[in-house]
Amino acid sequence: MIYITRRERFNAAHRLFRSDYSEEKNLEVFGKCSNPNWHGHNYELFVTVKGEINPETGFLVNLKKLSKIIRDTVIQKLDHKNINLEVDFMKGKLASTENLAVGMWEELKPLISELNAQLHCVKVVESENNYVEYFGK
Amino acid sequence: MIYITRRERFNAAHRLFRSDYSEEKNLEVFGKCSNPNWHGHNYELFVTVKGEINPETGFLVNLKKLSKIIRDTVIQKLDHKNINLEVDFMKGKLASTENLAVGMWEELKPLISELNAQLHCVKVVESENNYVEYFGK
Amino acid sequence: MIYITRRERFNAAHRLFRSDYSEEKNLEVFGKCSNPNWHGHNYELFVTVKGEINPETGFLVNLKKLSKIIRDTVIQKLDHKNINLEVDFMKGKLASTENLAVGMWEELKPLISELNAQLHCVKVVESENNYVEYFGK
Amino acid sequence: MIYITRRERFNAAHRLFRSDYSEEKNLEVFGKCSNPNWHGHNYELFVTVKGEINPETGFLVNLKKLSKIIRDTVIQKLDHKNINLEVDFMKGKLASTENLAVGMWEELKPLISELNAQLHCVKVVESENNYVEYFGK
Amino acid sequence: MIYITRRERFNAAHRLFRSDYSEEKNLEVFGKCSNPNWHGHNYELFVTVKGEINPETGFLVNLKKLSKIIRDTVIQKLDHKNINLEVDFMKGKLASTENLAVGMWEELKPLISELNAQLHCVKVVESENNYVEYFGK
Amino acid sequence: MIYITRRERFNAAHRLFRSDYSEEKNLEVFGKCSNPNWHGHNYELFVTVKGEINPETGFLVNLKKLSKIIRDTVIQKLDHKNINLEVDFMKGKLASTENLAVGMWEELKPLISELNAQLHCVKVVESENNYVEYFGK
Repeated sequence: MIYITRRERFNAAHRLFRSDYSEEKNLEVFGKCSNPNWHGHNYELFVTVKGEINPETGFLVNLKKLSKIIRDTVIQKLDHKNINLEVDFMKGKLASTENLAVGMWEELKPLISELNAQLHCVKVVESENNYVEYFGK
Repeated sequence: MIYITRRERFNAAHRLFRSDYSEEKNLEVFGKCSNPNWHGHNYELFVTVKGEINPETGFLVNLKKLSKIIRDTVIQKLDHKNINLEVDFMKGKLASTENLAVGMWEELKPLISELNAQLHCVKVVESENNYVEYFGK
Repeated sequence: MIYITRRERFNAAHRLFRSDYSEEKNLEVFGKCSNPNWHGHNYELFVTVKGEINPETGFLVNLKKLSKIIRDTVIQKLDHKNINLEVDFMKGKLASTENLAVGMWEELKPLISELNAQLHCVKVVESENNYVEYFGK
Repeated sequence: MIYITRRERFNAAHRLFRSDYSEEKNLEVFGKCSNPNWHGHNYELFVTVKGEINPETGFLVNLKKLSKIIRDTVIQKLDHKNINLEVDFMKGKLASTENLAVGMWEELKPLISELNAQLHCVKVVESENNYVEYFGK
Repeated sequence: MIYITRRERFNAAHRLFRSDYSEEKNLEVFGKCSNPNWHGHNYELFVTVKGEINPETGFLVNLKKLSKIIRDTVIQKLDHKNINLEVDFMKGKLASTENLAVGMWEELKPLISELNAQLHCVKVVESENNYVEYFGK
Repeated sequence: MIYITRRERFNAAHRLFRSDYSEEKNLEVFGKCSNPNWHGHNYELFVTVKGEINPETGFLVNLKKLSKIIRDTVIQKLDHKNINLEVDFMKGKLASTENLAVGMWEELKPLISELNAQLHCVKVVESENNYVEYFGK
């Protein structure tokens, strides 16, 4: 079993808030992340897949194909977008890094399986000081 | 003459567009950076000041004071904000990295002078692939 | 189960030595890290906690609270300090990165539990070339 | 059980190709990585070992010894070399990052055991956008 | 006058040697960089251009255009190539980082002028420990 | 004229204080950096030299020689040392990053001249948030 990780990046706007909270409650719970005029990040996404090395190619997966899947499936929906307003798989969810990681996992999982590999981890880095990892369970 | 640089960071949303352009024209000129729903970045700001070492302290400037000036003057106006809508010194300007660097220079310059140092450079890093530097002339 | 990691930093002095070793023996075992006049590092601390996403907030834990716990519990004891002489939870222990990771785990564990999360990993980066991880077992 | 990781670096040339493929087939499968005139990378190697802290030293392993083993065993064979042509443990294998990680694991495993520690992970970073990890099973 | 910098990357093989030197002399002068079987690097290229901000766009130059010029002019000639054997503007020159920086400057200079900006600096990072800068004079 | 930069690193302890200040005054002026029990840093040193490319080698200077000069002249005096107590060229000076940069410049300047190059800049990075540059005037 070998693990390979591909990094992709996206820049997006978001806001942490609940429409059923007052503005004061949102500020109390989410702090400056609840700013109604949005803020944003340079997100880094690390997708780790695992499986057996293909003896014919020496590869677990073709990295170009893995990169294309990640970009087609999640990056193009997120890059230079508003996570709260424009990303189908985040509709109705709080735009937290945690939910983003889980949402991307759900989008990516079936497509990774087609590569004869398994999705192992989705890691989302929101800033140099915090990141979230999801392993699907 | 010695040069000292302090890094500060802020996360903000912005959009590149002109209200006198059609949406098509905005897209043509500014690309995906013109997304009407905003996008955002983890910006890094490097402020370089220059002057003589104070023989009593061994310092050019007290870094805590320099950091406080930068945070009070520009970071708190920008962090977790929308650059187009909420930043006084960017009102009426295109929210480009170039204009941001010049705008921060104008805000910082008079306050650095009070430290017995001169502002030398404002560098704004928008992503790992691009940054802008302004030296005041 | 989701994992979230917070980075904090501290600068500290330390020395690796045993008082029951001769200076020669200390030099032989600990090398230049045994310098009697101390040396120091910019340490990075990565604290990973795990648990369920709170559906009300979209968070595993409030990162501000996690950061405050880490700073109040370990960073303020270590930052700009001498690890051998001034850090209560390192008293009587060799000031190695391994012992530092275990010591911080013991300090942090009960407080993380109060956040409805579990401490998963304490990672201490001593230089760009080495780091230690402790998972509590 | 504590985990300690040492980073070492090497610069090497390589090429991904099969001699039983036509040049067209190599290009199709391996893309520009199959360039017959070679290309190269600044590789980073992270070796993680695990075990118990030695109460006499506060160390899991002496990092200088770990570093020396890594350098003597794999780095000196790889640094400023051609992975396809000059590295004994890669002879007859495709010079992929996956095979490199497995090959280094096999070289390092017996020597780490002599340190009273176990090899836990070999991680090879080929570029800022991709890396491979091998845990020996 | 504002300065904007774009980073691009390329992976390439090279060798430092003179055909009029013996192998011993090459080894003496160029060390392990003279390995006849090549070695390689992940190079980073930072291209800095300078000029006036265009008041209509807020830009010095359109970064997409700048990036395309750099990629079309130098990156596609260098990426996954052998610098000694395959790069037209390096033919007949020693494949040192110094010569690479000057060579790229000559290629880029006329094309930057078409953007209504001036080329200010070509910086080539060969490893985390060394880089070369050329300012055209 | 070409510029080449070499990075070297050292870990050291230091303290900012004046013996003619009271402990209170030291704390007021130098903050936690005045801790009597020392603290420390992983310092990075970037030495930039400039001159003409030697047409015989393609080099400005031989990087191995430059690295050796830096290590023999300043790194071995500073690495795993106490800057206040053990570094000859810092005796009688406040152990600030500014004074360190100037002190290293004075040590390095005559030796760089022997390489047929000129010292251009000494840059000392004390943390990810601050660095000092000295250009000799």
